[in-house]
Amino acid sequence: MSLARADAEALDATDPLARFRDEFELPKGLIYLDGNSLGPPPKAVAARLADVVGGEWGRDLIRSWNLNGWMDAPLRTGGKIAALIGAAPHEVAVADSTTVNLFKLAAGALSLRPGRKVLLTPADNFPTDVYALEGLAGMVPGLELRIAEPERLVEAIDEATAAVVLTHVHYKTSLRWDLSEVTAAAHAKGALALWDLSHSVGALAVDLSLAKADLAVGCGYKYLNGGPGAPAFLFVAERHQAQIRSPLTGWMGHAEPFAFEGHYRPAPDIRAQVSGTPSVLGLAALEAGLDLQLQADPAQVEAKGLALAELFISLVEQRCAGHGLALLGPRESTRRGLHVSYAHPDGYALVQALIARGVIGDFRAPDVARFGFSPLYLSHAQVWDAVEILRDILETRAFDRADYRQRAAVT
Amino acid sequence: MSLARADAEALDATDPLARFRDEFELPKGLIYLDGNSLGPPPKAVAARLADVVGGEWGRDLIRSWNLNGWMDAPLRTGGKIAALIGAAPHEVAVADSTTVNLFKLAAGALSLRPGRKVLLTPADNFPTDVYALEGLAGMVPGLELRIAEPERLVEAIDEATAAVVLTHVHYKTSLRWDLSEVTAAAHAKGALALWDLSHSVGALAVDLSLAKADLAVGCGYKYLNGGPGAPAFLFVAERHQAQIRSPLTGWMGHAEPFAFEGHYRPAPDIRAQVSGTPSVLGLAALEAGLDLQLQADPAQVEAKGLALAELFISLVEQRCAGHGLALLGPRESTRRGLHVSYAHPDGYALVQALIARGVIGDFRAPDVARFGFSPLYLSHAQVWDAVEILRDILETRAFDRADYRQRAAVT
Repeated sequence: MSLARADAEALDATDPLARFRDEFELPKGLIYLDGNSLGPPPKAVAARLADVVGGEWGRDLIRSWNLNGWMDAPLRTGGKIAALIGAAPHEVAVADSTTVNLFKLAAGALSLRPGRKVLLTPADNFPTDVYALEGLAGMVPGLELRIAEPERLVEAIDEATAAVVLTHVHYKTSLRWDLSEVTAAAHAKGALALWDLSHSVGALAVDLSLAKADLAVGCGYKYLNGGPGAPAFLFVAERHQAQIRSPLTGWMGHAEPFAFEGHYRPAPDIRAQVSGTPSVLGLAALEAGLDLQLQADPAQVEAKGLALAELFISLVEQRCAGHGLALLGPRESTRRGLHVSYAHPDGYALVQALIARGVIGDFRAPDVARFGFSPLYLSHAQVWDAVEILRDILETRAFDRADYRQRAAVT
Repeated sequence: MSLARADAEALDATDPLARFRDEFELPKGLIYLDGNSLGPPPKAVAARLADVVGGEWGRDLIRSWNLNGWMDAPLRTGGKIAALIGAAPHEVAVADSTTVNLFKLAAGALSLRPGRKVLLTPADNFPTDVYALEGLAGMVPGLELRIAEPERLVEAIDEATAAVVLTHVHYKTSLRWDLSEVTAAAHAKGALALWDLSHSVGALAVDLSLAKADLAVGCGYKYLNGGPGAPAFLFVAERHQAQIRSPLTGWMGHAEPFAFEGHYRPAPDIRAQVSGTPSVLGLAALEAGLDLQLQADPAQVEAKGLALAELFISLVEQRCAGHGLALLGPRESTRRGLHVSYAHPDGYALVQALIARGVIGDFRAPDVARFGFSPLYLSHAQVWDAVEILRDILETRAFDRADYRQRAAVT
């Protein structure tokens, strides 16, 4: 069946999330398919930051830590993320970066499984996650970082495995692991599962409790629209909180932060995972994004996002066939996240040509063009238009320009 | 000699830094003596943040990482801090929190001194610094965290010591260690010195190069006025950069961040100490504070700050004698930082009574009232007024109220 723009418009007319588009700052006419890399600013952010600077920091100064809820922000904001990932509010905290949180929880997994000396991760895991595990392995004598081919990952879990560490939705292929299945396979061997939800949170209706998940981390600046370098989050299931030990011990995670005791005593709860003083500005922007996200039904968010991605794939199949685009990852929506990637011999130049025409995707080495379908501000008609522009660029070979081939450091 | 308010006013009339006061948002009439805990907002911050949100993030979105210098911000901002601490621009980066940076550099010191298994720190070091070292000791088998009485610290450095870790200016007593002396003593035993400059940067004219310092960390939200939870900084002397290894390895510290290679390869320079994605909002606010700070001569900043602190001490001696205030730390300015602390049996209530009269200091358990003398926005007359209010409170025992004695979590 061939789909016309009018069909896409009809889908927009009944889109229960359509009203959210007006809540974002986005340049007119731009089709932003990179919210999986950096979400756009919710309109509420500018006013919220102005208030934090002028109304809190500038007026109440140091007293703001109590008066304006700064002290509670890591756990309060964590509680809001918990509602998006099927966790209890007291199981999530916001702190540090995703990388640092992964380091903390991978070390934490070792503390929960003493005697086990293997961390297992798929060979194609997000590079920075592997780097964090390599950093940990460099510190802990005898720790083996076992890298498995993705299709052999589950069978590679054994009685020496402390934790399997993997990204729920693959940053390039969009392949979605089954949270419950992998977690159960880990548990069957007495191991833990540590999930990176960076490409899931705010996109898919994750249910960590249903999956009996142990540990998770994730990013604030993709689908949560929390701003560039937004603080990240971490999840520790309640049943692990009394035993887990973080190696990054700081005053915010102390049982009594203001007692200034000579030695560290961890807080008995998720706060033990908060180490140094958190970025109040970063937390404020993230919380504004979360307050918006929480107005949307997570099931509707997932359904719309998958529908947009499916629409893009279908239209590319119909209209861009024969131009060398090779879809990465599985074809079925149930096994994907909300971004869609294609290998193309001219992937880099193609992304540049699209940007020049107002369609922002991104490039991932060596040859991948990636497009994210964030449900809160994208319309079906925009997806239709993006494919039409892509088709035109491919048919006219408009990407075939020297200046499009010249790589900058980031796209 | 007794000093009148007119004498303080005369000092203000010739203060070369007087013009800076107008560059800060500060409530009228407030005497803010807590800039050593959280500096007030420079006026430029609000506009800078509005521009980052509306003009960069909202307009250029993901492309801002290149177009608007976000990618360079950790090193660019670090270079600005370098100018304040006598370092070369390429020796400083901004990243993470002070706690996390201390963890990184303490682990880094072990990598620079293989075979040595002792980290030495004074018993009264800032608690969160000790916590960070305890966290590291919990991870590295055989690592001894040796706690020495401050007066025995230097002689406790031995051939097993990888690094001595200490705070340049003590958070409570204001005692200032001699950077050059301690560093030389460490070097004499083949050890390194790792300094926490949180209470020095933006206050004292630190010269790390002159002191032949190895490693340092510090805070962005005290005298640098970088905002609540501002990102912290770290210094690695050029001669150590090729060898030092950070355990917190993330994509931003990779030799080629955008190659997404399967394994970690550290950047050959200070960038290897940047781990995950940095907070762009936090960096922007900090940079606005730094741009202001850099307009002031560091020698004048130190001289004025020490003069304000000395004025406070002298006036308290003259006007508040016999009321139970006991000065902590040394009396001589050359051995102090810019804050002044007094033990007092009613320390907590005293701080509350001062706050009620518009003089903001802070309380540190168990009985310490602490006052910071930030040179860019305080006048000599304000110091005079603060002591006058303190005298009045002490003489009338105005602090002796039940509601002043009721402790909140933070003051």
